Amino acid sequence: MSRFLSQKLQGLEAYVPGEQPRDKRYIKLNTNESPYPPPADVANAVGKAEIEDLRLYSDPECTALKSAVAKQYGVNTENVFISNGSDEVLNFAFMAYGDNGAIFPDITYGFYSVFANLYGIKPQIIPLRDDFTVDINDYCGKNSLVVIANPNAPTGIALELSEIEKIVSSNPDGIVIIDEAYVDFGAESAVKLTEKYSNLLVVQTYSKSRSMAGARLGFAIADQSIIQDLEKIKYSTNPYNINSITQIAGAAALNNQAYFDSNSKKIAETREYVKKELINLGFTVTDSKANFLFAKSDKIGGKELYLSLKERGVLIRHFESKRIKDYNRITIGSREEMEIFLKNLHEIIGGKK
Amino acid sequence: MSRFLSQKLQGLEAYVPGEQPRDKRYIKLNTNESPYPPPADVANAVGKAEIEDLRLYSDPECTALKSAVAKQYGVNTENVFISNGSDEVLNFAFMAYGDNGAIFPDITYGFYSVFANLYGIKPQIIPLRDDFTVDINDYCGKNSLVVIANPNAPTGIALELSEIEKIVSSNPDGIVIIDEAYVDFGAESAVKLTEKYSNLLVVQTYSKSRSMAGARLGFAIADQSIIQDLEKIKYSTNPYNINSITQIAGAAALNNQAYFDSNSKKIAETREYVKKELINLGFTVTDSKANFLFAKSDKIGGKELYLSLKERGVLIRHFESKRIKDYNRITIGSREEMEIFLKNLHEIIGGKK
Repeated sequence: MSRFLSQKLQGLEAYVPGEQPRDKRYIKLNTNESPYPPPADVANAVGKAEIEDLRLYSDPECTALKSAVAKQYGVNTENVFISNGSDEVLNFAFMAYGDNGAIFPDITYGFYSVFANLYGIKPQIIPLRDDFTVDINDYCGKNSLVVIANPNAPTGIALELSEIEKIVSSNPDGIVIIDEAYVDFGAESAVKLTEKYSNLLVVQTYSKSRSMAGARLGFAIADQSIIQDLEKIKYSTNPYNINSITQIAGAAALNNQAYFDSNSKKIAETREYVKKELINLGFTVTDSKANFLFAKSDKIGGKELYLSLKERGVLIRHFESKRIKDYNRITIGSREEMEIFLKNLHEIIGGKK
Repeated sequence: MSRFLSQKLQGLEAYVPGEQPRDKRYIKLNTNESPYPPPADVANAVGKAEIEDLRLYSDPECTALKSAVAKQYGVNTENVFISNGSDEVLNFAFMAYGDNGAIFPDITYGFYSVFANLYGIKPQIIPLRDDFTVDINDYCGKNSLVVIANPNAPTGIALELSEIEKIVSSNPDGIVIIDEAYVDFGAESAVKLTEKYSNLLVVQTYSKSRSMAGARLGFAIADQSIIQDLEKIKYSTNPYNINSITQIAGAAALNNQAYFDSNSKKIAETREYVKKELINLGFTVTDSKANFLFAKSDKIGGKELYLSLKERGVLIRHFESKRIKDYNRITIGSREEMEIFLKNLHEIIGGKK
């Protein structure tokens, strides 16, 4: 840190992304990436001409991509914001709507508290129930910025759409963000509620079900007035936020929704298979609707398991936070990757019997 | 604007990028893009495998790209920050270092005042001299955030390195940003001064001399402590700020610096040719060291000329701001594009005789 840094930022605790060690080739079940590549449409759309056109600025309005997303979700382009990963739009939303505080669960995406801290927002952090479910009553009638990941991470547990609607309708004077990064693996999207509620901001990403984490592409769907706010912040910080190749790739990807749907279904099936195996091995496993499982062994501590698997070349995500330190988050990879994970797990747990 | 937007942001005046009209095919001399494509190295580096790898997150540390930039500039990787266009690092720097105010010229890159406004920084805005040159005495001994584009935009006028050093050395308690977006077309970079001065932040971009405006890639070089501050803000807002294709393209581009040097030389030669022609036509033209000219006719107003050229399919950049409303900024395109520009100019000006 330099001696010039603003006092406001000196105490800031930055977000810590999942580790990406380069010492050997791991089976990566730690950052919720898809085991499947993007559809061929994407590679086909990025040719020599598109690379040559890099000399020109990307379209700051993301016209073609916005249209593709709007069409996909049956909304108007005025209801769509395109962002550099979903983190960017979450950042903008905290900046825009945090004046009356922010409220989110104790166990959820770790970035929410970083954003709150960044903007000097004192968050109201609500413990999940003992079984890691959300009690929606905690979020009703708050009229501050309510932030719910649905499904939640790292638990994978989802709320029903009717529960989401209760939260949104009971907070007419505060924005409700529903972060749907993992929605395509088994939960129900709140996008259609954006037509009815002008205080609802639904955030999605290309990083999980759409196999494009490396493209850095997210989007939000909301009432036109919310989108205008977000555009204002974008044009006041980084108007050309999405590079031209990502815009092309993102639009091309949507030509093949069936491919993504099929991948999401495969991942959900693999998840259910691995879940059953984990239960057979004595694990406690949450009811995940995401592309990961959240599980605790009755035979080995969370950190020990994480380290044992890492030694064997399998990365899963461990969190140090006290309430979940005996759990690990296991991304659902391909069936083959999960068999290797399970084989190693059997060997590790077998040694503990 | 929604009724939920933070009061702090309600009055914000966003940046207005150069127009990108799509009604017909224009000769685009309005946004300072390069007329030349990126080198073949870039297209060669982005193949099917790289597109397939989009399923994985991009490297948040930008390891390979940072090494390539560090090598290119003879600095350590700890002295390099990689940003999503240079706007992103400028944004971070205003956030980090604006507590004691910011100081910059009245005529310069329009985004500086937007950033100041965004962070509630009251800027000290110093008029350029009548001939649009910077009086460096205005920036010495200020110890607030000093922001100088060198060469300046839209004037193209550059300071000598010794003048930059005077500004930097006289502000030991404030950060000095030297925005070198256009430095490769004829000015001298201050990068080597970063070894000597821990308060100097040099910002560069791939958007101009490196023909990759659409890739959204910028970087900054500074003392390690400054880079740590910028990384802290990045990891608190958007850790995966650079997509993987851009990282690959950015590193590959640096394999062929000779190509860029040759293009920059060609552009500078074309600039001098066009400048002479403009003077012959009665224009007042600044001594631009950038990839654009800044020129005023004695026969036609700035806006009228801009509109006449637009009607004829040639876009240049007009600014409404009072002091420069009779000037226009003309990007240097290829020699062929500039001949078309000049032909149209002759016809427009000829009609005025």
